[in-house]
This record gives sequence, C-alpha cells and structure tokens, in this order.
Amino acid sequence: MPGDSGHDITMVTCTAPVNIAVIKYWGKRDEDLILPINSSLSVTLHQDQLKSTTTVACSPRFKEDRIWLNGKEENINQPRLQSCLREIRRLVRKRHIDGNVSSSALSSHHKVHICSVNNFPTAAGLASSAAGYACLVYALARLLGAEGELSEVARQGSGSACRSMYGGFVQWRMGTQPDGTDSVAQQVEPESHWPELRVLILVVSAERKPVGSTAGMETSVGTSSLLKHRAESVVPQRMEEMVRAIQQKDFAAFGELTMKDSNQFHATCLDTYPPIFYLNDVSRRIISMVHRYNQHCGETRVAYTFDAGPNAVIYTLQQHVPEFVELLKYFFPTETNGEFLKGLPVSSVTLPEDLTKAIGMEPLPGGIGYIISTKVGNTALRVLNPVCVL
Amino acid sequence: MPGDSGHDITMVTCTAPVNIAVIKYWGKRDEDLILPINSSLSVTLHQDQLKSTTTVACSPRFKEDRIWLNGKEENINQPRLQSCLREIRRLVRKRHIDGNVSSSALSSHHKVHICSVNNFPTAAGLASSAAGYACLVYALARLLGAEGELSEVARQGSGSACRSMYGGFVQWRMGTQPDGTDSVAQQVEPESHWPELRVLILVVSAERKPVGSTAGMETSVGTSSLLKHRAESVVPQRMEEMVRAIQQKDFAAFGELTMKDSNQFHATCLDTYPPIFYLNDVSRRIISMVHRYNQHCGETRVAYTFDAGPNAVIYTLQQHVPEFVELLKYFFPTETNGEFLKGLPVSSVTLPEDLTKAIGMEPLPGGIGYIISTKVGNTALRVLNPVCVL
Repeated sequence: MPGDSGHDITMVTCTAPVNIAVIKYWGKRDEDLILPINSSLSVTLHQDQLKSTTTVACSPRFKEDRIWLNGKEENINQPRLQSCLREIRRLVRKRHIDGNVSSSALSSHHKVHICSVNNFPTAAGLASSAAGYACLVYALARLLGAEGELSEVARQGSGSACRSMYGGFVQWRMGTQPDGTDSVAQQVEPESHWPELRVLILVVSAERKPVGSTAGMETSVGTSSLLKHRAESVVPQRMEEMVRAIQQKDFAAFGELTMKDSNQFHATCLDTYPPIFYLNDVSRRIISMVHRYNQHCGETRVAYTFDAGPNAVIYTLQQHVPEFVELLKYFFPTETNGEFLKGLPVSSVTLPEDLTKAIGMEPLPGGIGYIISTKVGNTALRVLNPVCVL
Repeated sequence: MPGDSGHDITMVTCTAPVNIAVIKYWGKRDEDLILPINSSLSVTLHQDQLKSTTTVACSPRFKEDRIWLNGKEENINQPRLQSCLREIRRLVRKRHIDGNVSSSALSSHHKVHICSVNNFPTAAGLASSAAGYACLVYALARLLGAEGELSEVARQGSGSACRSMYGGFVQWRMGTQPDGTDSVAQQVEPESHWPELRVLILVVSAERKPVGSTAGMETSVGTSSLLKHRAESVVPQRMEEMVRAIQQKDFAAFGELTMKDSNQFHATCLDTYPPIFYLNDVSRRIISMVHRYNQHCGETRVAYTFDAGPNAVIYTLQQHVPEFVELLKYFFPTETNGEFLKGLPVSSVTLPEDLTKAIGMEPLPGGIGYIISTKVGNTALRVLNPVCVL
C-alpha cells in the first residue's frame, strides 16, 4: 500500500495533449501567477499523433525533487516548475486538513522524481510546454491525491497548459480576480461535437531559434500599443464569435476568425520594439496559398494559424484534406527521402489543372519539412499506468 | 510671347524630389479627394540622387491631353491625373476671373502634353508617384500660371505627393474639412536645420510585385481594427514627438520613432484581411542587423523604415555612414560586377572584429542589389528650363 513502507516507490504515468489556439494568448497582466491580458480559445489535438507522457514517482527515499525532460535532467528550481509543485502540495495538504483522505495517503512532503517525454520533436516548434505542464500537473495530482481546479495549477507552469487539461474546444477565461482563481480553462464543446474537423501541422524549418514566448510577450506588453488595444477591444468580441462559430459548426466563420486572429497576433509582434518576427518567407507562401485556394473554391475551406514560430497549423474539414495535402505536395515538393506525411492516412487525389494554375506560385522544394495529419482530441488527460508501487 | 499665335508650343521643365515618410500614411477617409485617416511626416530626399523630371507643353494645336511616362505613352484618363489637370485648370480660371493675370496668359482650355521621367528605376520600388505627381502639378502651375495651395492639388494625384512640394522635413496635416482644403503639406524644418542627416536606400529585389498601395490601403481600412486604433490613438502623439525630435535634432528619438512607426505600419498590413506582406526575409535581416548594431553601439545610430515594398531606407548621421555601409557590404556581399554603392561617395573603413561578431549573422550574398547614398534635399521643386516658346 502506498505510504506503508519507507522504501516504496509509488508512481503514475499520464499523457496530455497539445492544443493549438485559434484565438491567441499573448501577454500577461501578472508574470508570477501567469494571468493573461485576454481570454483565448484552442483546439485540443488528438494524442495518437502528439502527446506528452509523464511519469511521476514519489518515495520517502528521494532526497530532493528532480526532473528529466526527454531523457536529460533539467533544473528543478525553475520558478514555474516550483509553482506547480508548490500548488499541488498545497492542494494535497488542504485535502489532508479537510480530513478528506485516508491515512495511507502520500504526504505532501515526499520528494518526487519526474520523467517527461514528447512523441514529437521539440524542434518542431510545437507548444510542447503546454502538453508538458498539463501532464505534469495531472500526474502529480493523481499520484499525491490532490483535488481542485487543476487548470489553475497548470496555468502557473505555462499559461496555455491550462487549455490542455480538456479535450475538444477549450476556452481559457482571463478572469478578473487578482489571485487568478477565476483564470481557468473550460470546455466549450467536446470533440464529438464536430468530428469532421481535421488538423495538419506543416513543419517549416526555421533558420534559427526565435525570441522565446515568455520574453517576447513581456516586450510586447511593454512596447506595443496595438497589443493593448487588441486585448481590450478586439478579443472580447472575437471570443464570442468564435464560440458561436464552433457551436454552429460554421467552418467559414471559424476559419476566417482563426486566420484573422493569427495575423493580428503576429501584427502585435511586429509592433513590438524591437520587433519580433515568427513568420518567415515559407510561412508567407503558405498563407498566400491558403487564400488563393479559398478564393478559387469560392469559400473558406482551409484556415491557417501560426504560433511563436514559422510552422503552420491548418484547420480544414475531412472532405477537403486529400486535395489540400496534394496541393502542399505540389507547391512544396519534398527534398528528402523521409516520410513527408505522418499521422492519419490521407488518400491521394489528382489535382485539377485549373487549380494549380489558379494558385500560380512557383513550387518551393523543401519549404515544408513534413506534415503531421491529425484531428481533434476526444480526451485530454489519460492515465497510461495507474498509481502503482514498485 | 505665350498665347500670341495659334501655333506656338509653350513649355516648361521642372524637377521634384522623392520623400520618405517617417510617420507613415496608410488609409484614406475619402478615396476621391485622397484625404488620409492620419497625419504623416516625411523627409524630402536630395534631387542629385533621386528626382522626377517633367516637361509640360501647351499649344492650341494640341487636340487632346496626353502623357508619356519614362518614354511610354500612358492613359491620360486615369482619374487621378484628371483630378490634377482639372484642379490646376480651376486655379487658372480663378486667376483669370479675379483679373489677376495679363491678357496674354495661356487659356485653361489649351490641351497639354506631359513627359515625365525618373532618374531611378521604377522597379526600385521607391515612391515614384509622389515625385511624379508633385512635379506634374508644379510644372502645370508654372506653365499655365496657376496660383494657390498646390500641395492640395498634388495630394489628389497621389496622397504622399503633397509632401514632395517642400524640402527638408515636411508634415502632411490630415485636416478636418470634408472638402480637403486643410489637408495640406507644411515644412516643419528646412534641410539646413539638420545637415548631418544621411539617407541610404537599400534596394532589395522583390520576388514579385506586392499589393499596390491604393488597393492595400482600402483593404486595410475596411478590415484592420488595429489600423483604426493606430490612426486615431497612436499617430497624433507620434506626430508631436517626431516634430520635437526633428526640432531638437535628437537622432535617438527620431530613429526609434521612425522604426516603431514603420513596424506599426507593416503590422497593420498584416492585420489586414487577407494579410498584406511587404517585408521579406531580407528586409527582416536588415531590421535585425540595425537593432544589433545599435545595441552593440549602446545608442540608436541607425534607423530603418520600409514603405510598401521590401526595400529599406536607412537614416543615420554623416559620421556613422562609412562603418554602417561597410557592415552592409560584409553581411550582404554583392553578387554582381555592377556598382554596389551609388550616389554620394562613402569612404572605406575597417570593421572592428568584435562588431561583426556582435552582429552574428550569416552573410547573405546578393540580398541587397545596390545602395543609393543620399541626403536631405534643400529645395523641393525646381524649374529646370523656364517657360519658353518653341
């Protein structure tokens, strides 16, 4: 039994998904508590393609908290890791004090060892910290028996991590309380609400590591007057419109708003001083291709969004995936022998000649390294191996 | 004497300068009168390096108005050309009605032939329309004897043309009148006020023609909420700060505001739907290099600004030109045998090794096609050949 002996190792393994925002989070009103200057909304991706897996072990034998990321030990004293550990332990103590726990429960004083791995390259520039912190918080809570608003704890690890606590379509309400208790994630709709939605991740090789999002946000908040305006006057209405578009499964509205919000986020980065650029010429070609494709189709069939890097995330509906992937292969032919399309299989189709002509771009070999084909995730956090004692 | 015979050709040749905005004009509140949504401020460049030359001829023998641009006849019926011709003729008639003219003056009914050439390639993406319309309006006024607020007429050809009517530092006040009579250019300071200021035009080859500014502005006004905020809430204060920086010859303030305003203009282009991109990867490298250079120097010595294209215009002070040009040669080595540096001569210097190391970028051969070295222009419009009769 857990806690029975002074030499047992109790452990649990959980997984958590990546989420991709369609209304972007950029800028904090409180750096320590990670409280945002605006609400945001994201789509949780399926864990079959992208996930973080975290094992947390606890033992009276452990002398200190330690963490390994993708096999390499990292500094456990990072403030954000410490915030998560502290908050989880606080919830555990609260439960103990409330007497709402068996006497055999693990103590909040026990040290933990954390191992976290991603099934996707960190270099892909995907928001690995969101999945990672969501997973860590969930695993710690399962292991130590913490209860409460876990998205509030995950938020203190990495803001967008709170949105990885739920599946489907998730909003992070900015909240108004100074202590952040109302700055939490909520599911807008589950994945089953809109099963036709598909996601393509276009991995574009960046020439160098861009400005990190923590530093970038801080500079943006300090220098961009457009960001302030966006947060106060643009996003509140967009959140309402986005929730409505999702509820009504109105892809045109969903896609246009997604693209506009991605562009506005990058606009505020450019309005930052010194300016921050995350999009490169390949990103711009993808943007251009999407608009020309939609124009040719006479409707918004495909939408792009870009986070703090040059990789594109494409949202579209199931029936349009084969043609659009074919188009990507045509205009960004692969230069390597590696697998160009990973994830969910996509059937081949023949491109109509008038379509490639309408796009009218020069193909750019190697512009896109590879594509990950995935969909909306139905569950957020999963216990891969339940709590066990070694 | 002009007007004596029915077969005389009366002509005049004038030149006009290019101007480069440091507080950008983007967006009209009236498309026909070309009234802007915000005031703007520019530096008039010296005509030794960049100018438009326009010859206007008038004769009772001419059956219709005609125009040749760089040797090729163009359609005289373009609405903006027609606006300028109509407004100048209105001023001529007004003068005649007022009786403020000799009986031998040319009639406003006479048809004109216009020849306009630039001494710089149009492909360089410089604001040739500003110089061109300023020159046309001035030449027509000299030929036909029109008097009045010529910047108001030039504005109706191309908004920024009104700023090319003056030398030195020029503001275009947006005005408030619906008829545009107070939307005119004014000199803030003459060139002699700040003779140390230097200008480098870095000609970056664009992969394709971007969205034209007229169409771009219209889409931006219609779709970008950030542009509206910029025009209403950001620019008024920036205009005051910029005038103060110029009056005090405070290069750091002038340069920072110039860079911020260029970035904000491009941010509003990105916030346009569909987004407009004028900067490319080379533009971004130049931006990056400027910030690293200033950071290394511990002060703002160099500032960039970009109009509706990838070319950079660099402002700096005379004493910093040689080192910065050397740096450009180092990080953007020329690929051709052509002249890399045109215009005002620049002496060679040896780059300190710690400087190139501090910039820390990979050199990009051919990124910059060539550089035009110039300075602020002391006079705006010049009569090259006075009115004469052939």
